Amino acid sequence: MATGATWRLSVSPSNFARLSLSFRTKRRQLPLRTACTVRSEVSLSVGVRLIPHPRKIETGGEDAFFVSGENGVLAVADGVSGWAERNVNPALFSRQLMSHASNFFADEEINCDPQILLRKSHEATTSVGSATVLFAMLEKNGTLKIANVGDCGLRIIRKGRVIFATCPQEHYFDCPYQISSESNGQTYEDATVCSIKLKEQDIIVMGSDGLFDNVFDREIITEISNFQDMTEAAKGLAELASNHSRDFYFDSPFSAEARTRGFDVKWWEKLLGKKLTGGKLDDITVIVAQVVKASTEQHS
Amino acid sequence: MATGATWRLSVSPSNFARLSLSFRTKRRQLPLRTACTVRSEVSLSVGVRLIPHPRKIETGGEDAFFVSGENGVLAVADGVSGWAERNVNPALFSRQLMSHASNFFADEEINCDPQILLRKSHEATTSVGSATVLFAMLEKNGTLKIANVGDCGLRIIRKGRVIFATCPQEHYFDCPYQISSESNGQTYEDATVCSIKLKEQDIIVMGSDGLFDNVFDREIITEISNFQDMTEAAKGLAELASNHSRDFYFDSPFSAEARTRGFDVKWWEKLLGKKLTGGKLDDITVIVAQVVKASTEQHS
Repeated sequence: MATGATWRLSVSPSNFARLSLSFRTKRRQLPLRTACTVRSEVSLSVGVRLIPHPRKIETGGEDAFFVSGENGVLAVADGVSGWAERNVNPALFSRQLMSHASNFFADEEINCDPQILLRKSHEATTSVGSATVLFAMLEKNGTLKIANVGDCGLRIIRKGRVIFATCPQEHYFDCPYQISSESNGQTYEDATVCSIKLKEQDIIVMGSDGLFDNVFDREIITEISNFQDMTEAAKGLAELASNHSRDFYFDSPFSAEARTRGFDVKWWEKLLGKKLTGGKLDDITVIVAQVVKASTEQHS
Repeated sequence: MATGATWRLSVSPSNFARLSLSFRTKRRQLPLRTACTVRSEVSLSVGVRLIPHPRKIETGGEDAFFVSGENGVLAVADGVSGWAERNVNPALFSRQLMSHASNFFADEEINCDPQILLRKSHEATTSVGSATVLFAMLEKNGTLKIANVGDCGLRIIRKGRVIFATCPQEHYFDCPYQISSESNGQTYEDATVCSIKLKEQDIIVMGSDGLFDNVFDREIITEISNFQDMTEAAKGLAELASNHSRDFYFDSPFSAEARTRGFDVKWWEKLLGKKLTGGKLDDITVIVAQVVKASTEQHS
């Protein structure tokens, strides 16, 4: 049921990643890449889980992600499925975008700036299509820098509470901003660019809209509190989202938002006490990363 | 009905401020304050409105704020009313905190860091009491830096959409994190510290929970779209919040959140189709600031 499409990840795509890596390495080995690789204080323990749309299991779906715990880079892209109507495989754009991000992230020009990484990755992507995308890069001082186009999402959880959340960008309901091969799409200039100062034990929950359309923040908090291991947390969250996405009666974040925007059951059904409910079938990508102190061994 | 408690503001407390000031001045005049005062690209047009709790009109309520358009500093503090039960005036702490912020914000040590401003202001405050507090400081490059303790709030609106929102911090429902005179309160170390890259025309909407408990984000967007002038926008938003706060039947953000937390009408009332509704009576402080290009005259 689950696949993982990863680049530069120290585990195979079909596995779930747990990366606990110091950032205090490689200054000398990679002189042009010092900005991102000189990390002395924090490391990330990362878990990843991708569950494709039920009808796209064989192709792996159209989400793509890239994580590099060693360099504190987390990225997710969600290929816009509407391209299938034009006989374009929507997965190609998101996958190529992530592939280029994995090639460029440590370039000196990037300088730990996710917006520049987005620009360079987009410029290099030749596939036809479009994707929502979210890049997060952790600086050595613990500042997480974020560039976001569309409705992928990121939450920071501290002491069991959400202290930071990205806001989705959209043209109208269910039509997000998207990085595109077409000139009328969005670019890095349309990204929301922000940062947040992290502390040890903070947990980053990041993913495609398949997660956040199907799981409320309060559920995310409850679910990850069940796990010490980030891989298990990502798996648990993705499975929760998947279960909700297939539940016609679950009053999901997506259905609640739809009602707010004026989409609902017919008036006579309302009179019978009914309302629009149900999850949203979609590719579901979940990345969970915890900020931990670099171990002594990793500093040596 | 409305009062404004301001420090270092170029208008009288009883008026509403509209400040449109360049940041490109004073490097030579204030050599120890260059970090905050050398602004060459952006300025802020600021409007402020404070409407006290209906039962606290004569005393002016327990919210306090401080804005300095010239230096890109916006601050709001909400004195915790529970101190009245101990015969302490809850307004003293929040007002003194803001007063110290107005004295310290341009010190070299602050270096445009709102978390340090919070620490210094808190250390200097001698009144007994506690307050939620939110500081926002605009850097010359357009980056808005934020330090937040408790449930004051801030939204960034770009092209008619919320692209950034702070998350309230609380111990439990309706008991926010708070900077305190007591050792068991929160400090600057508990602040959520984040930043966001702003563009011209972006609008900052900031305020005490009296705004955000009574007005949904979608209403904020609609309301401010009615005004070109930030003073009028702040006035309009504050009056909308005040109207909702006194409406027993309005399904406010506060009542919706209360239901989510398990507070609701009795079971037999639910059977009759009733639910917990109503706004929340409170002091209401609204600050609305738009990022505008510094005019040629102001640059000279």
